[in-house]
Amino acid sequence: MDKRSLFIAVHAGAGTHAKDNEPIYKAVCKAACMQAMALLQERKSALESVTAAVAVLEDAECTNAGLGSNLTMEGKVECDSSVMDGKTLFFGAVGALSGVKNPIKVAHRLAEEQKLGPLPLGRVRPSILVGNGAQDFCKSCDFDVRSNMLSKTAFKTYNRYKRKYQLAELSLTQPKKMRPNSNDTSSDWSRDEGGVQDTVGAVCVDHEGNVAAASSSGGIWLKHSGRLGPAAIYGAGCWAQNQVSASKAGVAAVTSGCGEHLIQTLLAKTCSDAIRSSADLSGSLASVFRDDFLGSEFLRNTDKKFGGVLAIKTNLDGSGREVELSWTHSTASMCIGYMDGGNKSPSVFVSRLDDSVIPGKSYTLGGHMAS
Amino acid sequence: MDKRSLFIAVHAGAGTHAKDNEPIYKAVCKAACMQAMALLQERKSALESVTAAVAVLEDAECTNAGLGSNLTMEGKVECDSSVMDGKTLFFGAVGALSGVKNPIKVAHRLAEEQKLGPLPLGRVRPSILVGNGAQDFCKSCDFDVRSNMLSKTAFKTYNRYKRKYQLAELSLTQPKKMRPNSNDTSSDWSRDEGGVQDTVGAVCVDHEGNVAAASSSGGIWLKHSGRLGPAAIYGAGCWAQNQVSASKAGVAAVTSGCGEHLIQTLLAKTCSDAIRSSADLSGSLASVFRDDFLGSEFLRNTDKKFGGVLAIKTNLDGSGREVELSWTHSTASMCIGYMDGGNKSPSVFVSRLDDSVIPGKSYTLGGHMAS
Repeated sequence: MDKRSLFIAVHAGAGTHAKDNEPIYKAVCKAACMQAMALLQERKSALESVTAAVAVLEDAECTNAGLGSNLTMEGKVECDSSVMDGKTLFFGAVGALSGVKNPIKVAHRLAEEQKLGPLPLGRVRPSILVGNGAQDFCKSCDFDVRSNMLSKTAFKTYNRYKRKYQLAELSLTQPKKMRPNSNDTSSDWSRDEGGVQDTVGAVCVDHEGNVAAASSSGGIWLKHSGRLGPAAIYGAGCWAQNQVSASKAGVAAVTSGCGEHLIQTLLAKTCSDAIRSSADLSGSLASVFRDDFLGSEFLRNTDKKFGGVLAIKTNLDGSGREVELSWTHSTASMCIGYMDGGNKSPSVFVSRLDDSVIPGKSYTLGGHMAS
Repeated sequence: MDKRSLFIAVHAGAGTHAKDNEPIYKAVCKAACMQAMALLQERKSALESVTAAVAVLEDAECTNAGLGSNLTMEGKVECDSSVMDGKTLFFGAVGALSGVKNPIKVAHRLAEEQKLGPLPLGRVRPSILVGNGAQDFCKSCDFDVRSNMLSKTAFKTYNRYKRKYQLAELSLTQPKKMRPNSNDTSSDWSRDEGGVQDTVGAVCVDHEGNVAAASSSGGIWLKHSGRLGPAAIYGAGCWAQNQVSASKAGVAAVTSGCGEHLIQTLLAKTCSDAIRSSADLSGSLASVFRDDFLGSEFLRNTDKKFGGVLAIKTNLDGSGREVELSWTHSTASMCIGYMDGGNKSPSVFVSRLDDSVIPGKSYTLGGHMAS
């Protein structure tokens, strides 16, 4: 096995990363890459490896997933999480799941169980479980279920936003002169430096050339209890399909940003479909992001569209395997890490939009070739 | 307004309809069409009219939606329901929702509220709510929420399947000679005449030429609590997009059948995309159903694929509006009703696969042109 054909890439959210916090985000992306690469070196599957990478991201308090998840309006943690296996094309997801430290491991379990075939009487196994039913499934599989999970950071963010929200609501019901300071009712959450990170994710290639993708999110702050976000939705948060022929490359993609916009454009699948049938990864990612996300007819009434995509493409040719990575985002920043099996440590960095352009209206693009 | 340009089509599930029960299914499809047409004649929107049609189907005890919903393994009703508006492209859905008589009205409410724009602080409104959070939303909107909803029919079906399931489970854990009669552990649920109907749905065209689609389901019998089915999933259960140019026809489609297969193929969106960019409705529906459902790489390990689609296409040309209807199914049967504004009463019928072909492997196709 050529170790260089192993590949992992992760991201800690497309959003707004405060410059002061960069070292924290980079450290967690590095740890996630190292964890996944250790498994890949042991010939573990792509699906297991992306799950492990996302579990590391979930365990970090600085990300909006698992432990650091944003709270609902009622102050609870409700997580969305999903995996897709490029080899079997099975998808597993949980939504609005409370009390579980690593929702991604539950999504992985649901995808793995589908390999066992139907249940007695030909009943098809579920691929997506939500709410209390998802929690019951966790208990039956011996996942540790606690009454609630709150991190200090998430609780502080919750209190800050709840206060802002109450002031904003007040301003809608009160006469103008009684309204609080307009700074407190800003309608542009993207400007709240450091407070907004979205869905995290990972994509990888294992020793057999299989691809997989995984994503996890605590959802938007002060979300409605029971709100399902893109990380739980087929085609929105993650997508993976192995290479099946010379003209159909392997692809794995994960998305992040404003949830409802990722859902309405089924962004992970839409980008994957475009990448898969094109020879040019970066070119196809740029054009599909521009036309089918920023220019989408589904978002025509939305002024600013916040999204990010991290994608890999595999190509088998006579000289061996080739893995290409590309990313794009219209959010102010996106924290990314990646490495192949020949590297000792991952490359980690925060990609930022140019100061001269407007987040939500412009995008930036980057890429890397490993072979 | 030319009344003939109004159009409604409904279906009471793609599954296995016992011949003895045909009059009951036809009567409920007729009532659903009449209800929707009455609203369309009052110049109500396509979205309101499909919602009303599906509410009639939900109220009937013979359908697997609303009142007649299949029960979960624990004996509870948990409904999935969604609407899509071809004009605004907004989608609203509820999943794993208990205690609400008409889940479709809640999905409709979620789609309607999106027209009001973002909440204070730029928070995007949710499009999909599940479980207890969805139930809390219903309470806050004055929907009547009961502790549980059980119909006599559903309870009888539940007991029958639960007994069969327990016998089947027993047969897996017991030595072969102790296994119960193999008739009781049949692995082919599609053969259980009259006991299996899936997701119901409606598509329509209003006086402005807008299209809309709606679907609702109680899910598979003995489903895992919290299991999300296609009727709650964007792109799987329903899809609608207005005509935007001569080459982009208006289309609305609803699907039914084995839930996980409809999800994995995002069948409503996949069919709509194909129909929308083709001049030939029936031809494109047949080829996309054959290639991307029965021949889907996502279902390559599935022996039999049970699905059904009901779709309309609108075309504006110089001589007025034209509406075309088509349906296809690989299930044994599908009960359908349709009418245009010039008809006094709807056409209702049960479409059946030829006795000579195998359900899940072959399909039948039908259509109607109204202009």
